[in-house]
Amino acid sequence: MNAETAEWLKSNDSKEYFELLRIPTVSSQLTDHLRDLVSCATWLRAWLRSIGAEAELVLPQGAAASGGCVVPVVFGELKRAEGAPTVLVYGHYDVQPPDPIEKWASNPFEPTVKGDRVYCRGAQDDKGQFFSFFCGLREYLANGKPINLKFVLEGQEECGSETLFKLLEDRAFRQKIVADTLLVCDTSAAADLRPAIVAGLRGVNHFTVTLSAANRDLHSGEYGGIAPNAAQGMAELMASLHNPDGSIAVSGFRDGIIAPTHEELSAAEAGLMDAAGYAKDIGTEPCGGQRGKSIAQRNAFEPTIEVNGLHSGYGGPGSKTVIPCEAIAKLSTRLVPGQSPKLAYEAVKRHLKDHCPKGMSVELGELTGEAPGFRLPLSSPLFALAADLLREIDSRGAVFQWDGASIPVVSALREATGAAPLLVGWGQSEDCIHSPNESYSVRQFLRSREWAMKILGGLAE
Amino acid sequence: MNAETAEWLKSNDSKEYFELLRIPTVSSQLTDHLRDLVSCATWLRAWLRSIGAEAELVLPQGAAASGGCVVPVVFGELKRAEGAPTVLVYGHYDVQPPDPIEKWASNPFEPTVKGDRVYCRGAQDDKGQFFSFFCGLREYLANGKPINLKFVLEGQEECGSETLFKLLEDRAFRQKIVADTLLVCDTSAAADLRPAIVAGLRGVNHFTVTLSAANRDLHSGEYGGIAPNAAQGMAELMASLHNPDGSIAVSGFRDGIIAPTHEELSAAEAGLMDAAGYAKDIGTEPCGGQRGKSIAQRNAFEPTIEVNGLHSGYGGPGSKTVIPCEAIAKLSTRLVPGQSPKLAYEAVKRHLKDHCPKGMSVELGELTGEAPGFRLPLSSPLFALAADLLREIDSRGAVFQWDGASIPVVSALREATGAAPLLVGWGQSEDCIHSPNESYSVRQFLRSREWAMKILGGLAE
Repeated sequence: MNAETAEWLKSNDSKEYFELLRIPTVSSQLTDHLRDLVSCATWLRAWLRSIGAEAELVLPQGAAASGGCVVPVVFGELKRAEGAPTVLVYGHYDVQPPDPIEKWASNPFEPTVKGDRVYCRGAQDDKGQFFSFFCGLREYLANGKPINLKFVLEGQEECGSETLFKLLEDRAFRQKIVADTLLVCDTSAAADLRPAIVAGLRGVNHFTVTLSAANRDLHSGEYGGIAPNAAQGMAELMASLHNPDGSIAVSGFRDGIIAPTHEELSAAEAGLMDAAGYAKDIGTEPCGGQRGKSIAQRNAFEPTIEVNGLHSGYGGPGSKTVIPCEAIAKLSTRLVPGQSPKLAYEAVKRHLKDHCPKGMSVELGELTGEAPGFRLPLSSPLFALAADLLREIDSRGAVFQWDGASIPVVSALREATGAAPLLVGWGQSEDCIHSPNESYSVRQFLRSREWAMKILGGLAE
Repeated sequence: MNAETAEWLKSNDSKEYFELLRIPTVSSQLTDHLRDLVSCATWLRAWLRSIGAEAELVLPQGAAASGGCVVPVVFGELKRAEGAPTVLVYGHYDVQPPDPIEKWASNPFEPTVKGDRVYCRGAQDDKGQFFSFFCGLREYLANGKPINLKFVLEGQEECGSETLFKLLEDRAFRQKIVADTLLVCDTSAAADLRPAIVAGLRGVNHFTVTLSAANRDLHSGEYGGIAPNAAQGMAELMASLHNPDGSIAVSGFRDGIIAPTHEELSAAEAGLMDAAGYAKDIGTEPCGGQRGKSIAQRNAFEPTIEVNGLHSGYGGPGSKTVIPCEAIAKLSTRLVPGQSPKLAYEAVKRHLKDHCPKGMSVELGELTGEAPGFRLPLSSPLFALAADLLREIDSRGAVFQWDGASIPVVSALREATGAAPLLVGWGQSEDCIHSPNESYSVRQFLRSREWAMKILGGLAE
């Protein structure tokens, strides 16, 4: 542990950050974690009030009655000066499930410091990212020029942003969050923490595929050679989604894709690790996606269809001689500008129906996301300001990135508020977000804190 | 409930049978169930002693020290007359796991009578089958002609018969179980309980396939298009095992297969349901196996490769945006005469290694079974005796069957004892063995009981 970490561990910042991390806000497991999500939202409301903001938990009209939309959005507002610009800060307080829990070296919901990193689910994504920014923001407020702030913190980013999307349908809520600039603290820096401005995000659809065969699991001896096998069928169905060269085999899925400009492509290539870097990072050949396209093309400007989960039949120790009657797959598709989320989903659905193995039936459900990809113009004044400030923080200056990940709600917030989005974050691949042993370094925390002070100062000018 | 069931429920037979069923002897989950397995073996030893047999629990020499072979075989012997024939009765007291437990209408380890059926894991396979035979045997002993009996009841048939196979390597044990006839109570009758003599069984190999890609689960946005996906890879690998016409695509796997004789094929076809019957039974088209071959060919005389389980990544509610780094598949292959279990396994292994997707590595483990298929000659005197006795029980007479299932230890027992095997059982497809809500009817129980008295009488002549 270095001196910086030792110092930071004594601060109020780290104390509060650890409190926030201890609340297990797993939004996709609502039955188990709704109480935690509400408790976390309440904690954040209190925190915003502690820095002088008005803050409230918001749910759509009639949400409780309808049985949906029960995870509140925390909305906060701090008016400092009529006429000064208004900045909307977005973050999310929910986290991914900790599974597989057995692969964690420490309790996934107890912040554990090792070296100069904090290990915990959410340490980075997104509690660490937005809360470190908040700590900088608090310090800025003490001495900086007047600026008006608004906050939107949601608790369902990891599973489709249901409440926030519903709220955005409401004119009064849209009015409330109008701003000049939208700051998003949920993205990554380039390698070795070189600053990055995200100039584009992929969109996303998530859904569950269920394949049904016989009316029950069958004995693999008695019925082997007679009954169709749902596990085998699902394997064939999933294999049919891609061609042998790794390209997507779903007809109509790629319709309308807008190719990147030469400027975008070269900037994206400059901002990513090379194949050797990725090989070292992930421990195997970075051979996902279509052969013959560069890593930047495949990750930033090409869509994907990923199998996020595949489950059928027996999975315990030893054997169970069964022909499974059902199989499920969790699928997600990342989408790029020009693709319609609706039409891309329909194309996959049609493909799965058309390729459904004999004797089986396929159903799709649990569709969430439905977010388009977007790209921002490289030549905006906001990007120029951010680039200048980031060079003050790091003499290497900023790179532009087209992140392969998605924050579906960013497109929606941009549309609803009219604000110019600025996505600068400090994630690194070694943070292992969405994986066991997620972590965030003190260096990242302090970098994010510094960025908050710089950008608020820049925008207040 | 009919009068026969009401009567039977008052009997000592049903009381003891329910005791036996309540012991959750899941052999593939040894950590949780070893105590139950030993307790069940002890119960059976007491039962055998109660009918006058000497009985003991047997483990291989030095088994405890070596850490393996901890599930005892129950061996019993009842000598009634020098010179009279010796009959060895085989059964197994272990059962399949009850998963998926949520699909059971009653507790899987509490015998529950509905109508004229008993619902419980093991109600049929194999506790119900061998214990109903035992009840007939007990009655036979009271009045029948002298006969010498031996009993081998094992507790690992569902997961590879480790202890019994180990014991069969021991000359002294082989000596102990020498017999003239081997009676096996673990097979099925034809439709509507028409008696069936099993003239052949398929062999089996079980094993687990593990496919590894990156060094951790990865975010499907950040790494989508870059990292290889183990779930997708496993789907491709499993899909590669079969050709589009349902035939097996593994080179070398079918080497040496002995085709059935015309007599065997027509007898097998007569003994099975037709496609419409199977469609009704399983609730979908019986389209497993290779197109263009008959159901009898596919189930009795052709090998299979079945995916018994497929697991990778997230499977809970909602979504988790992950690129899984690992996938496992549980595979079993059913084997027919002429196939070497060892070479067939090697062929699959070679295929999986050869087809391993880029950026991934594949490992095979947990190999059990390794049992060849066998067929018995239709023209033996034992088959003629059995056929005559079965016609006395049921005027339709017996059919010959080549069961698609496997009892690996039968081939081994046959070889070790020199006994002529006779496999007659009373299973029906509606028993749902290996599935949720396994059951056995009182009619089946009484049929099996009657068969025991008949065949022991016939063999004692």
